[in-house]
Amino acid sequence: MSNVQQSAEQLADAIRQSEEFSTLKEAYDAVMSDEIAKKMFDDFRNTQIELQQKQMQGQEITEEEVEKARKVVETVQQHEAISKLMEEEQKVNEFINSISRTITKPLEELYNQQ
Amino acid sequence: MSNVQQSAEQLADAIRQSEEFSTLKEAYDAVMSDEIAKKMFDDFRNTQIELQQKQMQGQEITEEEVEKARKVVETVQQHEAISKLMEEEQKVNEFINSISRTITKPLEELYNQQ
Ligand SMILES: [Ca+2]
Ligand SMILES: [Ca+2]
Repeated sequence: MSNVQQSAEQLADAIRQSEEFSTLKEAYDAVMSDEIAKKMFDDFRNTQIELQQKQMQGQEITEEEVEKARKVVETVQQHEAISKLMEEEQKVNEFINSISRTITKPLEELYNQQ
Repeated sequence: MSNVQQSAEQLADAIRQSEEFSTLKEAYDAVMSDEIAKKMFDDFRNTQIELQQKQMQGQEITEEEVEKARKVVETVQQHEAISKLMEEEQKVNEFINSISRTITKPLEELYNQQ
């Protein structure tokens, strides 16, 4: 295994063992072990994915669809376990973004050296 | 420094010392040390960025602009040092994408456990 691949695996392990990741996992498991919460969360995710795909394919999103999505978001945000999960997802996203910035620094240095 | 941040810095160093990155750096330096190549490459990049920004802002891209961009690409592809640089950029992109997949594996495992 190359040095890079080895370092990447080490980083993945460090992420698995991080506070941020364990907290996300707890929040995720809490939602998944609750049948109603799981269904609400799945609905929310499916609605999101559907709209994103339409957007990417340049399809028009109807007013009804926007309204439906808004209601789904409103509903899941009122569910404590799901809103906790969404909060932890947001934190892990920022965490991963910060890691990505560190990793792409070599490229940034190269392209900004002029 | 957290374990994660430390591992990310180590990975960035491994990337800096990798064959893929050194080869990209050589190709980049070759273009940058050649005044004509540098100007051509800068023009190409600026054209790309301009079109991307228009696209992201949902602005229409005229036929003339598409044609101009096509010509700029054609010209730079015929320049040996620049086409070498573009090839190495492509390889480093794939390299970084593969690293990203390793790093986001913990999240993938979490979300696919059901
Ligand atoms: Ca519960
Ligand atoms: Ca030269």
